[in-house]
Amino acid sequence: MSKFWSPFVKDLVPYVPGEQPKLQKLVKLNTNENPYGPSPKAVAAMQAELGDSLRLYPDPNSDQLKQAVADYYGVQRAQVFVGNGSDEVLAHLFYGLFKQDQPILFPDITYSFYPVYCGLYGIAYENVPLRDDFSIDVAAYLKPNGGIIFANPNAPTGRLLALDEIRRLLQGNPDSVVVIDEAYIDFGGQSAISLVNDFPNLLVTQTLSKSRSLAGLRVGLAVGHADLIEALERVKNSFNSYPLDRLAIVGAAAAFADEDYFIETCSKVIASREQVTAELIKLGFNVLPSAANFIFATHPERDAAALAQGLREQGVIVRHFNSARIDQYLRISIGTPEQNQALLEALKPLV
Amino acid sequence: MSKFWSPFVKDLVPYVPGEQPKLQKLVKLNTNENPYGPSPKAVAAMQAELGDSLRLYPDPNSDQLKQAVADYYGVQRAQVFVGNGSDEVLAHLFYGLFKQDQPILFPDITYSFYPVYCGLYGIAYENVPLRDDFSIDVAAYLKPNGGIIFANPNAPTGRLLALDEIRRLLQGNPDSVVVIDEAYIDFGGQSAISLVNDFPNLLVTQTLSKSRSLAGLRVGLAVGHADLIEALERVKNSFNSYPLDRLAIVGAAAAFADEDYFIETCSKVIASREQVTAELIKLGFNVLPSAANFIFATHPERDAAALAQGLREQGVIVRHFNSARIDQYLRISIGTPEQNQALLEALKPLV
Repeated sequence: MSKFWSPFVKDLVPYVPGEQPKLQKLVKLNTNENPYGPSPKAVAAMQAELGDSLRLYPDPNSDQLKQAVADYYGVQRAQVFVGNGSDEVLAHLFYGLFKQDQPILFPDITYSFYPVYCGLYGIAYENVPLRDDFSIDVAAYLKPNGGIIFANPNAPTGRLLALDEIRRLLQGNPDSVVVIDEAYIDFGGQSAISLVNDFPNLLVTQTLSKSRSLAGLRVGLAVGHADLIEALERVKNSFNSYPLDRLAIVGAAAAFADEDYFIETCSKVIASREQVTAELIKLGFNVLPSAANFIFATHPERDAAALAQGLREQGVIVRHFNSARIDQYLRISIGTPEQNQALLEALKPLV
Repeated sequence: MSKFWSPFVKDLVPYVPGEQPKLQKLVKLNTNENPYGPSPKAVAAMQAELGDSLRLYPDPNSDQLKQAVADYYGVQRAQVFVGNGSDEVLAHLFYGLFKQDQPILFPDITYSFYPVYCGLYGIAYENVPLRDDFSIDVAAYLKPNGGIIFANPNAPTGRLLALDEIRRLLQGNPDSVVVIDEAYIDFGGQSAISLVNDFPNLLVTQTLSKSRSLAGLRVGLAVGHADLIEALERVKNSFNSYPLDRLAIVGAAAAFADEDYFIETCSKVIASREQVTAELIKLGFNVLPSAANFIFATHPERDAAALAQGLREQGVIVRHFNSARIDQYLRISIGTPEQNQALLEALKPLV
């Protein structure tokens, strides 16, 4: 604390991201990165941009990338917003759409950055408990609110809410913005982007950090009604004119254009997920049904924190959240077949 | 306006950056980019990072870059903050340091993003007029305030405030944060970073977009007392864990390590600035003394907006601000010798 800080700063509780270890030899299954590299076409596009052109500012509107996303999803460019990772997109939408008189609603178990944004911008919120099986109960969101947000598939549970349930949620909340955070949708769900032309209050966010293998490039996006996008653009243009660099714009656009590679890598991750799930069940774990590139698992006879520590001692990192209701679970990212095998081998002596 | 917006959004007046034309043939002297490309060592560092590693998140703390900046300026790493362009750094410091009971102070003519940040975060401000010669009058800032900020060299004037004047400003404001925005300092001034260990209320911001030729990569920084940096980190970590991508971290760090290239390109820009200034004076312009990579010039017999339009018709873009006190000036970025010659040739028929 310093007398020079804006007064609210002392009360901020920042988000804590998963560890990014500087040791290279670890089997890193803790931050849901894709085990496969980015599309070679994305790399080639960045290669072509890497040079003297970096002396010039990028397009402040990232129109090339917005158009690639619009083409991919069959929407208008004015329905697309892009940012420096979906975390930045989320920050702008919390401020630009969720700073309302009524509290916003999100699950008690979901992406743990949401309450941090509320703290940053002074937004009131109310946690809506997941059901005992960690599924989302849409009926619990049918009450007055200043906005609704959750991840789908949810994090860190991996559970998917079906599209018809999202439609029911939107129909029941015509006066507030509903944000579906689809960071993991490509690993097993249907995007709610198909609903944006039916619901002016729906905003869908996505990231290129997971299914597009570009966590290191920092690109996220939102799709919705042009009026919602305009709010985000107004906040963005009052914050930073050029959030996406020249390499990110061309790399992300090229990633969206390489459908074959996308399908191939997502399919491999999904197949590995099913295989790891089956093996974990053999080891005595209970595993939630996952539509993501990670699984959320608990062992009825082994303490989760002790398991995480035991894995770490063997060079395998997974994520353990010391939080109510989920402190006996491990969130395990799906790796390459070799990494998954290393995980399973390291678990065997621990269970 | 939409019923779904947070109420303050309708009153936002976003910043308008200089045009980034999509035509390639223009002589682009409107956004103060460096006419020379980035350090080949910076390009090589990015080249080495461009590939499968992009599937992994970057270091959320960008320690490699912070250390490069700390080494360069002889400060501790904890005294360095980095962000997605200095615009993001500025946004975070406005919110984290300037949201105070008293209004902040900045010149009536300076970087036009400052009032935009105030609008975004609900920060009261007071404009302090520059003197008639567009110099900063330090005595006018010796009064109660919630913070002080200006660009040095100032924008769009290019005028430099000497370091002993900054010291006087700091001594007269021990209870508020003074931010010196040094986007252009490498083209003719001494950095106030040399004062950060003497003044716990001093924060200096810089960008890699100008003297380091990396506008397209989006990297900015701040240096100051570790307590001030901590406020910025708390806001940043409540906003976006990973604002700098993997390519930006290594490219920016390598740019700071290549002192020879930096000195060579800055020297060329400075020499061209002096030459262009002399030529403009021959054409009848009054030119303010500039310590930046641009010049601010007025012609006593020619309307500035008409001159800008006349230049554009010949394929040369400069920046004209339709604002009080400066609407008869043109801000002209220094280009390559060939670009500068094209500017001068295009001006001759207009004056």
